[in-house]
Amino acid sequence: MDERIHEHAEVLVDWSARVEDGDDVVMTVGPDAHPLAVAVAEKLGERGANLVTTYASGEVQRAYLRAHDDDFDQDPDHELALYEHADVGLYLGGGRNTSAMADVPAEKRQAHSKATQGLMEARMDTDWVSTVHPNRSLAQQAGMAFEEYQDFAYDAILRDWESLAEEMARMKSILDDGSEVRIVKDGTDLTMSIEGRTAVNSAASVVYDSHNLPSGEVFTAPADPEGEVTFDVPMTVHGQRIKDVTLTFEDGEVVDYAAVQGEDAIEEVVETDEGARRLGELGIGMNRGIDRVTDNILFDEKMGGTVHLALGRAYDACLPEGESGNESAVHVDLITDMDEGSRMEVDGEIVQRDGRFRWEDGFEG
Amino acid sequence: MDERIHEHAEVLVDWSARVEDGDDVVMTVGPDAHPLAVAVAEKLGERGANLVTTYASGEVQRAYLRAHDDDFDQDPDHELALYEHADVGLYLGGGRNTSAMADVPAEKRQAHSKATQGLMEARMDTDWVSTVHPNRSLAQQAGMAFEEYQDFAYDAILRDWESLAEEMARMKSILDDGSEVRIVKDGTDLTMSIEGRTAVNSAASVVYDSHNLPSGEVFTAPADPEGEVTFDVPMTVHGQRIKDVTLTFEDGEVVDYAAVQGEDAIEEVVETDEGARRLGELGIGMNRGIDRVTDNILFDEKMGGTVHLALGRAYDACLPEGESGNESAVHVDLITDMDEGSRMEVDGEIVQRDGRFRWEDGFEG
Repeated sequence: MDERIHEHAEVLVDWSARVEDGDDVVMTVGPDAHPLAVAVAEKLGERGANLVTTYASGEVQRAYLRAHDDDFDQDPDHELALYEHADVGLYLGGGRNTSAMADVPAEKRQAHSKATQGLMEARMDTDWVSTVHPNRSLAQQAGMAFEEYQDFAYDAILRDWESLAEEMARMKSILDDGSEVRIVKDGTDLTMSIEGRTAVNSAASVVYDSHNLPSGEVFTAPADPEGEVTFDVPMTVHGQRIKDVTLTFEDGEVVDYAAVQGEDAIEEVVETDEGARRLGELGIGMNRGIDRVTDNILFDEKMGGTVHLALGRAYDACLPEGESGNESAVHVDLITDMDEGSRMEVDGEIVQRDGRFRWEDGFEG
Repeated sequence: MDERIHEHAEVLVDWSARVEDGDDVVMTVGPDAHPLAVAVAEKLGERGANLVTTYASGEVQRAYLRAHDDDFDQDPDHELALYEHADVGLYLGGGRNTSAMADVPAEKRQAHSKATQGLMEARMDTDWVSTVHPNRSLAQQAGMAFEEYQDFAYDAILRDWESLAEEMARMKSILDDGSEVRIVKDGTDLTMSIEGRTAVNSAASVVYDSHNLPSGEVFTAPADPEGEVTFDVPMTVHGQRIKDVTLTFEDGEVVDYAAVQGEDAIEEVVETDEGARRLGELGIGMNRGIDRVTDNILFDEKMGGTVHLALGRAYDACLPEGESGNESAVHVDLITDMDEGSRMEVDGEIVQRDGRFRWEDGFEG
């Protein structure tokens, strides 16, 4: 077995999920994530955890959902009991076709999600971590050769997380202490308030309230955006490719939008509800192991030297105690590359210029 | 998808497990049983059942068990809760290597089984059914080509179960009404008491108390065997090949044993405990779809025209109310072919001769 699979398992179990002796763990395995499942099972055995392994197949789910009459039972007892008694949930993604569920009608998926809201909450109440086993299907989605993709994915996953967490702590304290963020680049001049908000140091560990491996971003919940922003990192939104989206904000709301490709998808997002016209997240990508776009949001939004903004729902963790986030049914991330000619200011001080942070070599303020 | 996979799923869900609207189902899938899992998920969706899919991989289990220190927690909460809230358990076997757990020490497996006895009981309390998806690993074990093995397995699984159940009911009533069974063939003349015992019509459905697909045997719990019996169907016992085992019974107990191959394995069984020297089961194979030995007990013991006897534990279902079966830690089936020159008598009347039952064409009494 590729030694990196063992290292991935160790990071997942020890750094990310902090599994301890006696923990009741549910490990969910994609059909193509078998090698990682074997390596994780070994680590869980070493730690003395208790293991239930579930199988997450898009093809099984597709067959079930398409055959069902849509009148789904509310939070089935057996599955709810499993997660209510679990301490840790590990999600090892890796299907054989990222479009496996393409022909499941959206209403069917929504009806099922709605009926299993309690299950989702029970899963989120565990110490859960999502990761992916790099496989051929994900390589294809990224437009990369398989071995090339493995190298890419493990560069992103096998970081020195402790030192990255320290670096990200600097960014967190700048945002926590700041009142206003300004982003400037070609086609972009946007200001947002972050007054009274708390940033999350998303360092790929449950102890940082961070549930993705890889992670490597610092994010907060901005308010009152004003100005224009262009998102030049291409991505897939609701199954549609989008390219060079421009949003114009006035009085905190989207008043105009345009896109070179996929403008329909953006329209669909913006028209969802009131909250979808406001911002729910400002995220700063700081994972330097991610050096290219692979059309997988788990990786793309953490890319070192990018910034993403989400239309829609905000995370409670970023808000003052008792305050609820920007209410919306959606949370759609859009990414901009903060490369040559760009800068980010907090309260007028430059924190990032030409893709370099203030504390990095080559930064010119 | 091979149409037979859909038919297999339908037999499993409708005939065997009798799944109904609202049932909470746990479907356990081997790594190579994915196509069957997809077909079964479709049927479960149609029936309106609720589905949790678990993953049964020998490689995952091996890694976990080998890494664990043997001090296993008793019946982990989350897994126990899952099965205590489940109505139906479907086991879709099909690994990629039947020897996947070969290097897990026996003591480790035993320690784990012992710690999870309550889990096993909770699983057995559901309407459970075990089946296998014919794959290359099972074909190899059977010494058959893959397509040849598929034809074999589907012949065994896709029976007219209703009519086979009726045929087996005849055998059940003969055994229920009888007092003594005698088996005679070359190297074999054995009598057993079946007085007061109840036979199980194992027709591959939970409504018949039958939990294997394929099934197709009628079995009871015999007592006081007397005489000699030769088992000429080769099989694997405790990982060892055995061939032509002969057992001699006096006063209901094994007093002598011999084997052309694997005598050590038989010794190990017989020496386990007191109960291992007595018989726990007399089974009559009646599935004519199984026409050859494939070194898989799920199939071999149901082969039409064979009889098997088990050393060790008896099934409670065969015993008078309140009576407990032959106590033993083992239950090891041994099979003899009732072909040319053999006969089975119940209370002196011939029920089977030269491999033909009394009601079959070609039977000569």
